[in-house]
Formats: sequence, C-alpha cells, structure tokens
Amino acid sequence: MTPDIAPIAWTGDSLRLIDQTLLPARLEYRDVADVDDLVDAIKRLVVRGAPALGVAGALGVVVALRQADRESWDATTRDAAIARIREARPTAVNLAAGVDRVRPLVDEGADAVLAEALAFLDEDVRGNRAIGRHGAAWLTARTGDRPLRLLTHCNAGALATAGWGTALGVVRELHARDRVETVYADETRPLLQGSRLTAWELEQMGVPYYVQPDGAAAGTILGGHVDAAIVGADRVAANGDTANKVGTLAVALACAAAGIPFLVAAPWSTVDLATPDGARIPIEQRAPAEILANGGTPVAPPGARAHNPAFDVTPARLVTALITETGVLEPARGRTPAEEAAEKRERGR
Amino acid sequence: MTPDIAPIAWTGDSLRLIDQTLLPARLEYRDVADVDDLVDAIKRLVVRGAPALGVAGALGVVVALRQADRESWDATTRDAAIARIREARPTAVNLAAGVDRVRPLVDEGADAVLAEALAFLDEDVRGNRAIGRHGAAWLTARTGDRPLRLLTHCNAGALATAGWGTALGVVRELHARDRVETVYADETRPLLQGSRLTAWELEQMGVPYYVQPDGAAAGTILGGHVDAAIVGADRVAANGDTANKVGTLAVALACAAAGIPFLVAAPWSTVDLATPDGARIPIEQRAPAEILANGGTPVAPPGARAHNPAFDVTPARLVTALITETGVLEPARGRTPAEEAAEKRERGR
Repeated sequence: MTPDIAPIAWTGDSLRLIDQTLLPARLEYRDVADVDDLVDAIKRLVVRGAPALGVAGALGVVVALRQADRESWDATTRDAAIARIREARPTAVNLAAGVDRVRPLVDEGADAVLAEALAFLDEDVRGNRAIGRHGAAWLTARTGDRPLRLLTHCNAGALATAGWGTALGVVRELHARDRVETVYADETRPLLQGSRLTAWELEQMGVPYYVQPDGAAAGTILGGHVDAAIVGADRVAANGDTANKVGTLAVALACAAAGIPFLVAAPWSTVDLATPDGARIPIEQRAPAEILANGGTPVAPPGARAHNPAFDVTPARLVTALITETGVLEPARGRTPAEEAAEKRERGR
Repeated sequence: MTPDIAPIAWTGDSLRLIDQTLLPARLEYRDVADVDDLVDAIKRLVVRGAPALGVAGALGVVVALRQADRESWDATTRDAAIARIREARPTAVNLAAGVDRVRPLVDEGADAVLAEALAFLDEDVRGNRAIGRHGAAWLTARTGDRPLRLLTHCNAGALATAGWGTALGVVRELHARDRVETVYADETRPLLQGSRLTAWELEQMGVPYYVQPDGAAAGTILGGHVDAAIVGADRVAANGDTANKVGTLAVALACAAAGIPFLVAAPWSTVDLATPDGARIPIEQRAPAEILANGGTPVAPPGARAHNPAFDVTPARLVTALITETGVLEPARGRTPAEEAAEKRERGR
C-alpha cells in the first residue's frame, strides 16, 4: 500500500523525511543516518504530528543501531542514543511509544527492528485508510450524496502521520468518491500548520480550498457555508473529551450552534483511557515569542506577556463523532471511549 | 476634556492621525491634507475603528474643502472627492455617517464644517466616557466588588475612537476604580490589532494583560479564567445583531457556553436602524495577501485562495448587554435597539 504523500520512509540506508519546515515553499527530503541529525529533525519539527513521531521514533531506533554498528558503540552508548531519540520531544507520547514498541527487539539486531518499525508504519497507514472509510461512510449516511463543504483546523493530514492522514484522510477518501465541494482550512496560529501544511496537501490532492484566519471559522460555520468540521486529536480522554490544537474548541462550539457535525478523526492509540476527562490533560504552554514577534520583529509592546497554550480541550458533548480505525463512536450522544474499549475487551474474550 | 490618547486631531491645516500601522514599534503622527492620502490612510488602516472613522470622515470633509479651495475644484469634483472618502470602507457605517453629519454644511464652507466636525469629535469622547461609566456600573452590579478578569478582541480602545475608547473605555473606567485584575487581549488576525494596539493601550494604562492567539479565547473562557468579555462593534442592526472584527462570534459563543456576560460597547451612532438584522450587514472581504503571506513571504501554496472577511456577525441572542452612551440594553433578553430607539423618540416628544 503506497501512500500518496510519504513523509517518512526507509531508503535502505537511512530514514527519509519530508522537511516540513520548508513547506509550502518547496518539497525537500532529508535523509537521516545519524542520531544527532534525527534528534535535531524532531526538535525543529522537520517531522511533526503525533502518529508521524511514533513511526519516526521506531525507525529512529534502526538509525541508532546502524550507527552503533558503523562506529562500534558499546551497549551503553547505543542505549543512551536510543533514549535521546525517545526524549527529543518530551510531551510527544507517541514518540516514546514508537521507540518502546521496537526496543524489545534491539538485541536481535537492526534488521529485526527495521521489520517491526516498517510493520508499524504500514499499520499506521492502513489504520488511517480505515479512518477515512469510516468517516466518509458516516458523513455520507448523514448528508446524502451531495459534495460536502468541510472545515478543518491545524494539520491532521498525511504529513502528521506515516501517510494518508486522519482528518484529512477522511477528506481524501471523500474526494476519491467525488464528494468534496470545498475545504475551509483554518490557518492555525501561531505556527500556521493550516496554511503551510493542510493547504499544501489539499493542493496536492486537487481539492478546492480556502485558507481563512482561525477567527473566521465561527462565521463561516454559522453563515451556513460548512456541512461538517473534521479535526484530528492529540489526546482523547476516557470520557471523550478531546485535546487538539488550540482553536479547535471554537470550531466545535460553532458547529453545535449551527447544528452541523463536529468530527474528531484519530487512531485508538490517541485514546488515553488512563485520563478520565479533559480536565486532567496537561496543556503545554509554548514560547511567548511565537505570538509576540513575527519573523523576529516584535508585534506587541516590550514587556507583553503571552498566553500561548498549544492545545485546548473540546468537551465530549460537542464531539458528534469520534472516527477511529475500528469504527465510529458518538460521544455527544453519550457513547464514551471507555465504554467502547470495555466492550471491545469483552468481545475479544 | 483631553483624552489620554488622541488618535485624531485637527492641526489647523490638516488632519493629524496616529499612524496605527506603525504601533507598537513606534508612535508616529501622519498629517493628511489631501483626499487621496486620506482614502489611502483609511484603506490601509492608518486610522481604523468605527467611531474613529466617523470623526475622520467628518474632518475628512474639511480636508476635501481645503483641497477644493487650493486646487479650484468645481462642485462636482468636490462632491466626488467627499463621496470617495465616504465609501473608503463599506462595512463602516460610522464613516458614512460622519461624512453625512457635516455634509449639509458644505456650502457654508470649510470653517463651518470644521466647527461641526470638532463638536462631533468632542461628543465622541464624552460619549465614550459615558459608555465607560455605564459598562463599569453594569458589570460591578453583576459581579460585585472583586477585580475582574476580562477578555477583549481586536481594538475598541482610544485608538478606535476620538479618544478614551468604547470596550477599552469600560476597562479604563474599571481600572480607574481598581476593578481590573487582568485582560486577555486576542491578537486578532490577520492584522493583529489586539497585540499591536490593544496591548499597547493596556501597557499605557498599566493594566496587567496577556496577548493570546484568537484560537485560545474559547479555551480561556471555558477554562474559567474570564469573568466577562467586552468588545466594540462596527455595526449593530435594529434587532441587536452585531458586526464586529472577525473572531468576535467565537468569543460570544464561548461566553454563552460558559455562562459569563458578553458585552458590546458602542455609541448609538453604531446602531443602524435601517438594517433590520445581521444578515443584511455587508461583510467586507479583505486582500488574500493579508493571510497568504507574512511580511512578503508566502505561507500558503501558490494558487491558494483566501477567505478573509473583516467582520463576523454575532446574533443578538448572544449579546448579554449593549453598552451605549445613554445606558445599557440587554439584547439577549429580548430588548432590541429598535424598541429602545422607539421609546427614546416617544420620551423625546
């Protein structure tokens, strides 16, 4: 299964990443064959997005093992290198999980780790394709056959995953079925993942789209220009409360006021049953400079303080549907991920 | 009565404007003595904010008459120049109203128009001080004596008026009474009037504040960090629907969800009884480059289309209180500006 956009691949010798810091100006790949380079790429957001970081972490262990062979590292040096990859972005739970998935195979050598990491990559893409199908079917069942006007926030596309995407995976699937009229892409301040990355992916897909300021989303939705909004998730709590890029909550409130569906598309790995509700999700505060300056030029008075949370939490009552690789839950109607998980365990017995 | 910040003044020869495009980096004045310059200043938002545009429109007629004298225009040329000022920004009902207020005096000459325009300027500042008092009293009656945590969007401050401000005039009044704990200022994309102008005014006032991305407002409000939101208005329809800077609607939706007051502070001149409801308010689309590029560097793919409305419309049901210079209406409780105006006419008989 070949995804159309491959942000992460194994070349035979090295990890190949799309350098997302250069988009949308140019599409360049960066081949990473040593641990320092990989840690730098992760820290600088050359690769970003929760599922993508997981796969990059798993393949990163291969990078470390190859380098260990070349440079005759001892086990301590090797393990320290793997730990550095795992902790390159401390809040990215998927990165650590990706490393941890392949770590038990380290003593079997680089090839065994590579096989597992590629299986993980393939699972991610297959999962996203399933999310796309479930989301497309759910929407089509509710809106009929007409092409849809959709709205998304931030980037939950191929670039945020190993391929295909989650929220944009649903758009991709609907587009393949000729069911997309247009997509409103919120620019997504402060780092503009919407205008830089989502718009670029929509351009590649050939989907008509508009970039809009985040503040325009509510008016676009209440003005009747949108049939449904669909976003990704950084963490989904057991009760269905969803943390996603800051600005998502306003989209959800507007959808509720307009009576249109608000969809969250995310793999089950994003559901954290250990977190009972959104109030327990820690919200990362990012650097003030992201909003107080623009390309190095101050846009606020000297001494201004910033409130710059990376995420906000949308309560489950506003999440019309949570689209996962195994099907669709409706948290707003009282169906929680915790209940679904319990039933899955029951069925699995 | 001397306002603390004088964004608009008459120098004797020309209209003196604070060049708001240069704030917060530097405070510079721009002297405007010809109509092309004035139209350019209005379009480029050197002067902006509904009440400020009204006063700039009235004094702009003086600029046109002085230029007509200097350049020996005929009446047709003169009237066309005045019409160009009047139509420099379509959603701004105040601009047209400011021009219309002094137009009957055009045949009496520049001095008669100037006297009327300066009276208008003085009325604006007096009206804003009254708005400040009414808003502070309304809020204090509902929240008690504790210092308030407020949120505002865009800039409805001294800079948006002839002085003192509307929404920030209420903050100014509350601050004078020691009743402000902190203000969250939405940065207000795409032109950043919040981080550039509101933050600058709050800094001048000595009020503690945070600048936040527009997308953070809903989370700040639903997170329980805000006691009330207060914004200005570009036009209020007869039924209380309110057009204000894009992003305002999301703030209002979040306030309703959180059960905190959403206040609109605006002079009666912003109320347009000829517009029955928000659906009839024309919404200006601004240049795509405002969001597709950043300081000349593209931040979206070539060929991206932009949806860049300057305003959105908040329905009356979400407007807890409309603070005017003559008192407070509560549109969300069914009290419309049209009814209030009718009663005022009745009382005036």
